[in-house]
Amino acid sequence: MDKLKHVPLEGRQRVVIEGVAPEIDGGRFAIKRTVGDSVEVQAIVFADGHDSIACELLYRAADEADWLHAPMTAKGNDCWEAVFSVSVIGRYFYTVRAWMDPFQTWRGDLKKRIAAGQDISVDLLIGAKLVAEAGERAGGEDAARLREWADSLRAGNTSAAESEELLASMRLYPDLTLAAQYQRELAVVVDREKARFSTWYELFPRSTAAEAGRHGSFADAEKRLPYIASMGFDVVYLPPIHPIGHQFRKGKNNSTTAEGSDVGSPWAIGDQTGGHTAIHSELGTLKQFQAFRKAAQAAGLEVALDIAFQCTPDHPWTREHPEWFRRRPDGTIQYAENPPKKYQDIYPIDFETPQWRELWEGLKGVFDYWIAQDIVLFRVDNPHTKAFPFWEWCIGAIKEEHPEVLFLAEAFTRPHVTNRLAKLGFSQSYTYFTWRNTKAELTTYFTELTQGPAREYFRANLWPNTPDILPQVLQIGGRPAFMVRLLLAATLGANYGIYGPAFELGESTPREPGSEEYLNSEKYELKHWDIESPQSLRHFIARVNRVRRENPALQQDWTLKFHETDNPNLICYSKASPDAGNVIIIVVNLDWGHTQAGWVTLDYASLGLEPGKTFEAEDLLSGGRFLWQAPRDYVELVPDSLPGHVLRVRRWLKTERDFDYYL
Amino acid sequence: MDKLKHVPLEGRQRVVIEGVAPEIDGGRFAIKRTVGDSVEVQAIVFADGHDSIACELLYRAADEADWLHAPMTAKGNDCWEAVFSVSVIGRYFYTVRAWMDPFQTWRGDLKKRIAAGQDISVDLLIGAKLVAEAGERAGGEDAARLREWADSLRAGNTSAAESEELLASMRLYPDLTLAAQYQRELAVVVDREKARFSTWYELFPRSTAAEAGRHGSFADAEKRLPYIASMGFDVVYLPPIHPIGHQFRKGKNNSTTAEGSDVGSPWAIGDQTGGHTAIHSELGTLKQFQAFRKAAQAAGLEVALDIAFQCTPDHPWTREHPEWFRRRPDGTIQYAENPPKKYQDIYPIDFETPQWRELWEGLKGVFDYWIAQDIVLFRVDNPHTKAFPFWEWCIGAIKEEHPEVLFLAEAFTRPHVTNRLAKLGFSQSYTYFTWRNTKAELTTYFTELTQGPAREYFRANLWPNTPDILPQVLQIGGRPAFMVRLLLAATLGANYGIYGPAFELGESTPREPGSEEYLNSEKYELKHWDIESPQSLRHFIARVNRVRRENPALQQDWTLKFHETDNPNLICYSKASPDAGNVIIIVVNLDWGHTQAGWVTLDYASLGLEPGKTFEAEDLLSGGRFLWQAPRDYVELVPDSLPGHVLRVRRWLKTERDFDYYL
Repeated sequence: MDKLKHVPLEGRQRVVIEGVAPEIDGGRFAIKRTVGDSVEVQAIVFADGHDSIACELLYRAADEADWLHAPMTAKGNDCWEAVFSVSVIGRYFYTVRAWMDPFQTWRGDLKKRIAAGQDISVDLLIGAKLVAEAGERAGGEDAARLREWADSLRAGNTSAAESEELLASMRLYPDLTLAAQYQRELAVVVDREKARFSTWYELFPRSTAAEAGRHGSFADAEKRLPYIASMGFDVVYLPPIHPIGHQFRKGKNNSTTAEGSDVGSPWAIGDQTGGHTAIHSELGTLKQFQAFRKAAQAAGLEVALDIAFQCTPDHPWTREHPEWFRRRPDGTIQYAENPPKKYQDIYPIDFETPQWRELWEGLKGVFDYWIAQDIVLFRVDNPHTKAFPFWEWCIGAIKEEHPEVLFLAEAFTRPHVTNRLAKLGFSQSYTYFTWRNTKAELTTYFTELTQGPAREYFRANLWPNTPDILPQVLQIGGRPAFMVRLLLAATLGANYGIYGPAFELGESTPREPGSEEYLNSEKYELKHWDIESPQSLRHFIARVNRVRRENPALQQDWTLKFHETDNPNLICYSKASPDAGNVIIIVVNLDWGHTQAGWVTLDYASLGLEPGKTFEAEDLLSGGRFLWQAPRDYVELVPDSLPGHVLRVRRWLKTERDFDYYL
Repeated sequence: MDKLKHVPLEGRQRVVIEGVAPEIDGGRFAIKRTVGDSVEVQAIVFADGHDSIACELLYRAADEADWLHAPMTAKGNDCWEAVFSVSVIGRYFYTVRAWMDPFQTWRGDLKKRIAAGQDISVDLLIGAKLVAEAGERAGGEDAARLREWADSLRAGNTSAAESEELLASMRLYPDLTLAAQYQRELAVVVDREKARFSTWYELFPRSTAAEAGRHGSFADAEKRLPYIASMGFDVVYLPPIHPIGHQFRKGKNNSTTAEGSDVGSPWAIGDQTGGHTAIHSELGTLKQFQAFRKAAQAAGLEVALDIAFQCTPDHPWTREHPEWFRRRPDGTIQYAENPPKKYQDIYPIDFETPQWRELWEGLKGVFDYWIAQDIVLFRVDNPHTKAFPFWEWCIGAIKEEHPEVLFLAEAFTRPHVTNRLAKLGFSQSYTYFTWRNTKAELTTYFTELTQGPAREYFRANLWPNTPDILPQVLQIGGRPAFMVRLLLAATLGANYGIYGPAFELGESTPREPGSEEYLNSEKYELKHWDIESPQSLRHFIARVNRVRRENPALQQDWTLKFHETDNPNLICYSKASPDAGNVIIIVVNLDWGHTQAGWVTLDYASLGLEPGKTFEAEDLLSGGRFLWQAPRDYVELVPDSLPGHVLRVRRWLKTERDFDYYL
């Protein structure tokens, strides 16, 4: 048959499978889920002509050799669907298989022939052959039963057309000789629950000393843990805990000349005593770090470490691996620059070095070291300034051995770059939430994040502030603005975090007008925080975080839905738990300076509420209860005292009363 | 380095290329263009950090060994673009390559350093090295010139930072060692112009005899050619011209019992004298067919043949290749069925036959035979009832040898199936236009066809009627409805066709109420048409087709744009030639029963018109000229006499007059 050019090996695969979803970039990247989640798979499946087809989802955990099967259901317009659950962390794979189903075709046709009173003797023989062939594929009792059916058909028994038992049996033994399988196997990364739902508190341990002016230690930080836990956080995230360089050390307020007493930036990593696997001597020893970690764990707090791949001129790597850095013609190592600005305290790593393999191993070794110290949560500093292929390999290799490890990408950069890092494997990502303030901005951005295609791989982690970012809104909005921004972060995002105690204490002074840097930033000096200040938002934060813990609706992002308000300063949105048993409606006054009121129109259908029904709502912030008039009700919110409502819809029961929703 | 799992061969490719468009199903299928068209390629390209990158489009015709290069331009948000033209029919390929551009980075940085008055002596050495390395990659004079530049830089010449000559030269010799190339090469099928712009006339040659009752021949049909050409068609499409089966032949109006005189359906192919490569004896000989083809060609008409892969019980294949058909347990060949209906005059082909390779060759042989007879345009009957893998192979193999061959898919079936056939290679496709009548239906459907992703591979061919479909609108709307439907087909679709003379003579009687079949359909009997009837729409059709020929705007579909009207019975849309030099605005009264009037608001920006400017419009149907008040003007359309406007925007010149647009 050499006349045939490009002829397929098997030309009789009549079924077409296309449009399998979810699928990222033609299957190039994995989708993400957390343990217990469902994966809803859709595919466009059809064949030529009008014969029946059958279609199934194939899926398996990475360490299982055989596919599990789930029949797919036709939803119209050639779209088929099935769902599978991911029950262990690690990787899963899925794909779709489909085939012609001659028995189903025959069965449907036979019914019509019988109804039309046609002679079906030959058709019964055709059916008998199909059933007998299935019998040959079957074993044991099934084989015997199918042989009986075949005999019965040959003998003229027409009841086969109606038999559900025969149909079920035939479905078990399809002829897969000409089955088509989707050309790709698609991957799922399944993470532990914290990837989906986490509440972060960023803390500089060196600023936790009881006395002002003293360098805090892990032992001091340990004493701060009950305070953090009392606010309902579940992650305590530490900026780099490594030795800080001395050459070109930055002084207070990022001054290029440091005083002798200046403590430097924790992100200027490495001195003579060690680098990324060493601990700053003033913080304590590895043993003390472990004591801190265990105390945190006991308080329900997981410790996240900051991995910042950059070195000071004092870092051991500059001596042990000078080839990992770019060298200038004058023999010096190239420091970081954004011309004309020079950052001589930092040597960036050269990902184009011919020794990239050793470099990659070295960098991964940093993670390996801390994983061996039972740290399985990392915040990665500026991952977008390191080569992308490194991240894909590094995260993949680590998660293959340690699927429980999670990575938060601190990439405040362009959308495609941010998304790429998430595709490459980062478990969570910082977002533009920090700068999204208006109703229009929030609605557009969070609709994109939670309803757009990126939600399959990009998990948002929302931060109202960070040590690098004191946004305008917090500089000018005062305490009410802090409340609004926290409420938004905590309810728009199942993952969110604050940089404290700066946040709860309302620290709001910029280094200079127009700057987003903090004045006297903790990045360059020790701070002494008055955490007992009566102005603190700690109780408000604790309340909000308790609401998050108690309401599954707020522990994931996919069910987010915005509702109409007639006042641009009022934003309304809802979230529901995946089983729809827990429904939370949030209304926030975005104007921290004035009371705002207006009418909110809920999209009842999206909330699973019966049209026209009043329901009882419990405000989980204020504790009040009231009846929501369907679908439109009046809301008034006063800054500071009541920045928003977090309403729980009380469960519906049929009653004779004038409202039908209660717990 | 065996500790490294899954490590890439080259980890230093810092540039990422993703989101290359157009791309169909992850590169699985080719996009389509016609000769002279442009392909606008977009890609998302970026690297880690802030260094400059360079990006180019690679493209080539299939028979060229080497890529041609076109620099891509950054359009913001990491999106890069370039365009290439396809100048020969056949296949083209394209992909994207990108790399770090250290010279560009260095050059930009140097300017900033100079502006800041910094010491740049070391930077000049860095630049000298980059330039010297490019010199090594260059040859001849360029190499020498680059060496000079390197020396000059070493000597402290700072003008290199500004030199456009050096920049241009450096761009010619980039270091591609670590360049990234998009993982796929994407294909373009480039067809001749007729794939994009064609005007079809379907004709039963057997109904062209001068005398009623006589079976027409190619010689008779030849005499009909001037009439068809006078209406401005460029394709004459013949239903199957093969011998018609005798067993179970269908009688008039699809009766299952034929009279001895009944001529049968041309789609019931094959008798003792031959099958798909034979000619019905009453139509004439192959020589007479060739005479007809040549006469058509001389009249500006290309002959399209109908390929219907199905056989009557009399077809030679049923004897020569019984294994190409499905056999029933009683030894007979399985006829076509839609239980309880039986079509015993038709044997469908069994694409699951073990002899599928021979079958495929046999079917392709039919096309090969007619291609050898200089037929390069085929209308394929019901391709969706034949196996998809066959079409992909068959069309691919034929076009590899004969890229001029075009295939029109007659698949009136579900959207995904229809689209799949287009992806597999069909050059044009029948559409749902036949049943889209209201403004909303037409707007939605044609926006999808011309602006959606399918336009890259799906070329619509619009038919107001076919021998199988006399739509309701033509049954009830009378002559004005025929005019409206023709005008819509001819202006919404660069490809359209009619089944004549039934169409121009207004044949409108269904077989029975509710049926879309013609009464006394030409499919089952000879017809004698009075083509000279004064009621004929021939002159209207001729006018419309002349407008199409004279206006490039109407010869493609991608620039289609709908405009607002305040009357749901008035639809307004425009098309522009790709160079925007020819702009046509169409307004149609969709209500064939009543005069309709209303205000039309043109989207001036999309038309390239200056806001607020009146322009002169020439009505290419009525010949009138008038001034269009910007942007909203009043339109009144009277059924029968003026079903619509086809307005040509007269070219703009700056004048002192109160209107600024004229020829």
